[in-house]
Amino acid sequence: MNKIITIGRELGSGGRELGKRLSEMLGFAYYDNEIITGIAEKTELAESYVKQVLEHSPMASFPITIGHSFYPGVSMSMDQATNIYVEQSNIITEMADKSDCVIVGRCADYILRDRHPFRIFVYAAPEYRIERCRKNVKENEMLNDRQIWRNIRKVDRHRAKYYMFYTGRKWGDKNNYDICINTTNASIKSVAEALVKMLRPEEESPTK
Amino acid sequence: MNKIITIGRELGSGGRELGKRLSEMLGFAYYDNEIITGIAEKTELAESYVKQVLEHSPMASFPITIGHSFYPGVSMSMDQATNIYVEQSNIITEMADKSDCVIVGRCADYILRDRHPFRIFVYAAPEYRIERCRKNVKENEMLNDRQIWRNIRKVDRHRAKYYMFYTGRKWGDKNNYDICINTTNASIKSVAEALVKMLRPEEESPTK
Repeated sequence: MNKIITIGRELGSGGRELGKRLSEMLGFAYYDNEIITGIAEKTELAESYVKQVLEHSPMASFPITIGHSFYPGVSMSMDQATNIYVEQSNIITEMADKSDCVIVGRCADYILRDRHPFRIFVYAAPEYRIERCRKNVKENEMLNDRQIWRNIRKVDRHRAKYYMFYTGRKWGDKNNYDICINTTNASIKSVAEALVKMLRPEEESPTK
Repeated sequence: MNKIITIGRELGSGGRELGKRLSEMLGFAYYDNEIITGIAEKTELAESYVKQVLEHSPMASFPITIGHSFYPGVSMSMDQATNIYVEQSNIITEMADKSDCVIVGRCADYILRDRHPFRIFVYAAPEYRIERCRKNVKENEMLNDRQIWRNIRKVDRHRAKYYMFYTGRKWGDKNNYDICINTTNASIKSVAEALVKMLRPEEESPTK
């Protein structure tokens, strides 16, 4: 069975960077927005529309207005949200069938639970997350800390609602993960190296 | 400043074993029951009595009966509990002054917070904890799973109350730790190796 690593992460905690580093160091495939693209191709919906759906809780108020999709002003029904989730689950399962992989977000830890993925959750202190978001997101350059933090909390709330809705579990609850990492005082590089050591303990053994 | 690792742990999760392994691998001092002995020496109270005090929440009902101490039937006042906590804090601070060290339990993460210890929390699934407690504690040999689990939960509740009382924080809340490790599917040995890698990333570098 392929080895699977799933990463849940608070916005601005460095979860994506950790995922990318792990995939490079382990030679695993890396999936994140690729999943969205995959769904978009399958469902023949515009990518930006699917992204909107996935980033909003299915419990969000309807109708939602879609910014740059091919479906301006479209109302998303509950059925539609569920269909996209089902399609997403299929794509994630296909990816896990194909090769060893790292999957960031998208309830992959739950969807693939029968395959016993190594489930990571990444989190950090507010100051660290604000700083990281300011550096990484160009649009944040003009915002003050309070505005960035408001945006971060909004995204976190969506992720938590989405996760709860589709899994019945609390997002970020340590019991749902194999390891939870606070990146506030850690370098993502050294965290990645430590995890590789944990996942491949046979490497760098004295016999080598 | 000395390097300090603190370990909070659910009963039966392997936190003590992890602490011992880390101290051996890193060449750090290891403190656990030694702390109690230290307090006992300083306060001139019997070790078993101090142990009882530390293992019970200060909010527990009084008086408590002490099994094998030199103070049978003694009532512990709130002052007495607080004095022992203060003495414990002093001893932990002295230990941290003395050398690099690993300290298991006893609110050390909070007591030493100004020295920025690396704060680990270790947890595991109930089945794993029951199994571990059965193996490690002789008296548990005759108990069934339900009885062992009841004891585990009792100890956990005490630890949570004690931690909350003296720190004002929630015991096991991931935001109070640098890393939270679920030992259900992991070998403690490989976890220890990974943590050493993380704490000493310069080791085993390509230049060596």
